[in-house]
Amino acid sequence: MKLQVAIDRVSLAEALKLALLLDSEVDIIEFGTSLVKDYGLYALQDVKAQLKHAQVLFDLKTIDEGVYEFEKGYAVNADILTVMAGSAKDTLTKVYEVAERENKEMLIDLMETDDTKLVQITDYEHAIYGLHHSHDREDLLDAAASVADFHEKYPNVKRIAIAGGIDLENAKKLAAQGLTETVIVGSKILKATDPIAAAHEFKEALK
Amino acid sequence: MKLQVAIDRVSLAEALKLALLLDSEVDIIEFGTSLVKDYGLYALQDVKAQLKHAQVLFDLKTIDEGVYEFEKGYAVNADILTVMAGSAKDTLTKVYEVAERENKEMLIDLMETDDTKLVQITDYEHAIYGLHHSHDREDLLDAAASVADFHEKYPNVKRIAIAGGIDLENAKKLAAQGLTETVIVGSKILKATDPIAAAHEFKEALK
Repeated sequence: MKLQVAIDRVSLAEALKLALLLDSEVDIIEFGTSLVKDYGLYALQDVKAQLKHAQVLFDLKTIDEGVYEFEKGYAVNADILTVMAGSAKDTLTKVYEVAERENKEMLIDLMETDDTKLVQITDYEHAIYGLHHSHDREDLLDAAASVADFHEKYPNVKRIAIAGGIDLENAKKLAAQGLTETVIVGSKILKATDPIAAAHEFKEALK
Repeated sequence: MKLQVAIDRVSLAEALKLALLLDSEVDIIEFGTSLVKDYGLYALQDVKAQLKHAQVLFDLKTIDEGVYEFEKGYAVNADILTVMAGSAKDTLTKVYEVAERENKEMLIDLMETDDTKLVQITDYEHAIYGLHHSHDREDLLDAAASVADFHEKYPNVKRIAIAGGIDLENAKKLAAQGLTETVIVGSKILKATDPIAAAHEFKEALK
């Protein structure tokens, strides 16, 4: 299983420092939506070249103007870009076409998406489907139960990622369950006293 | 009725040039999502001070981390910020609280929102509700019919804006109908040979 660390709500300088620190320990480094919206994609274009190991994800959260945003995001060297499941079906199809054409990846953020919409959008074979619990919601997420429920409903989806308050215990449960491709961790790594050691512990838990 | 011009998918320098050109002719100048995501909010912070007349809207399209994004958006001098109706209810409530506290405005973008969600979110008294047809959708929007339909279902919503391929004929129909507060126009002004004259025509049509 892959470990993705989500860097968010810090300065660009701090984000770069954290990315370089964690590059060798994690599989994917996410530059969160706050970094995109605060600094812009142009400011992120040199990030990829500075990293030796990890893939780079920009959490664009595209919801419209899909081709414009995805072409721009890949042009500034993202390996993976995100699109909201709540976008129009036309948007999802268009960004998937851009990702396939560029030989890059896309993650569909399923936050706040109901089954009426989900049944229409589980046909993007190479896309990663990201189960995502809003930061702003007050209720808590049971990660393994969410994945099990999603897999039962949509067994044709092969690539699942999950984000939202994931701790070591959640990570171990997800590893044992064996249905998730990528576990996305934020504060449990970034706010640890020793982020490298914390990332290492998560990698061990996901083995 | 108010006229909002939406500037999108151009360079920041071009956006500023257009904003200064149209400042005296329109009521609200929207800096589109592409400008936010390409250049970042910090790059937009001086825009408001350069304009003499129009309100400034940053099309943030917030979908999560609402308080962070809205506090940042108002801190860089936006008068109006946008949030997606597809956000969690908790996100909408939190950004509304920020807008009220800062004595600023918010527009809820209703793109791809069904009635199940709409009935839960029409209670933000001072919010502007933006009927919005995705740029990526292939089908066309009948502006006046959309407003009539929305008003019939949600008569308690007092502030309505509409965007999506609005031309002069649509604008006249909306003015005659009298239910819309703000008409949002993009290419019909910005791609006109004389954008100032085009904006003036729209203002006349909305009288």
